[in-house]
Amino acid sequence: METLDAIRLRCSLKTKLSEREVPPDAVEAVLRAACLAPSARNSQPWRFVVVRGREAIDALAAAALPEASAVIRRAPVIVVACALPAVGVTVGDRPYFLYDVGSAVQNLLLAATDRGLATHLIASFDEAAVKRVLRIPDDVRVVVLTPLAWPDAASYQEAAAERLSQRTRLPFEEVVFEGFWGGA
Amino acid sequence: METLDAIRLRCSLKTKLSEREVPPDAVEAVLRAACLAPSARNSQPWRFVVVRGREAIDALAAAALPEASAVIRRAPVIVVACALPAVGVTVGDRPYFLYDVGSAVQNLLLAATDRGLATHLIASFDEAAVKRVLRIPDDVRVVVLTPLAWPDAASYQEAAAERLSQRTRLPFEEVVFEGFWGGA
Repeated sequence: METLDAIRLRCSLKTKLSEREVPPDAVEAVLRAACLAPSARNSQPWRFVVVRGREAIDALAAAALPEASAVIRRAPVIVVACALPAVGVTVGDRPYFLYDVGSAVQNLLLAATDRGLATHLIASFDEAAVKRVLRIPDDVRVVVLTPLAWPDAASYQEAAAERLSQRTRLPFEEVVFEGFWGGA
Repeated sequence: METLDAIRLRCSLKTKLSEREVPPDAVEAVLRAACLAPSARNSQPWRFVVVRGREAIDALAAAALPEASAVIRRAPVIVVACALPAVGVTVGDRPYFLYDVGSAVQNLLLAATDRGLATHLIASFDEAAVKRVLRIPDDVRVVVLTPLAWPDAASYQEAAAERLSQRTRLPFEEVVFEGFWGGA
């Protein structure tokens, strides 16, 4: 898929997930794409835990995802994106570990879209419970989770059409300035 | 360009920038790609200031980019990515505004790569000076800067070849775990 198509088609598809298995090589490919993101001084402060299978995902969701719908639980794979604050770089008073994880996960989402896999970022979770269930150390932060699943439709595009038709973004001129803040 | 090619070819090209003009529609296209990134509750806490032209870029670099090489100053365009912490969403004790800006800028970098434009993330800058020069309000954070420039080579691929040959990433199995933290 063309890069701009992946950027345009990527959207949150929580209501359209199939239980169909996602092959391990597809999961590996999107995670390898994540790892190619840039990071401050190449610190690579991201880590990923891949949770597969009904039992493991149900245990995670029951403990840590109170808002996770039954639909999300249908996903055959959940990726848990973590950050190592101590590995990340701070410049002045600006820590970059969360920024860097955002870059890496965006690569992951685009690589998944490129393969026709649905994703849906989840930021609402009980971090202590995620850590307990997945044995994540205290000094690690859990940042986002996403299912990786085939959409329950003939194609990614078909599954995404309704969601994309409802997409809202701020007016471009409120977000991008020319020359200086507020410049048009 | 295929999505995975853009992800793979994106790299920092600070030593290979041409002074050749980048058309406004190319700048707009990569910024529109940035704005399609996901953000916590669609808060879109990113803002961008586009700095064009020798005089404006020299003023910015002189005031705020002590480490900026003469090579970076050759770029016809610098994009300054900012964050609005107050607009960003915090879930529990987890603020997402920096994560969201990382996602948006990654879209920007990939869209630039797709067009054959060189980029190079800069995190070392005098934030107060950037704000002063670009009239950025106190409650805004400056997160990263990148030049947007044509590479000084026959193609993006040719300009990037040496840099990509030197790319280093942590071993995959140290970054991606199966089932639980440390799981193989």
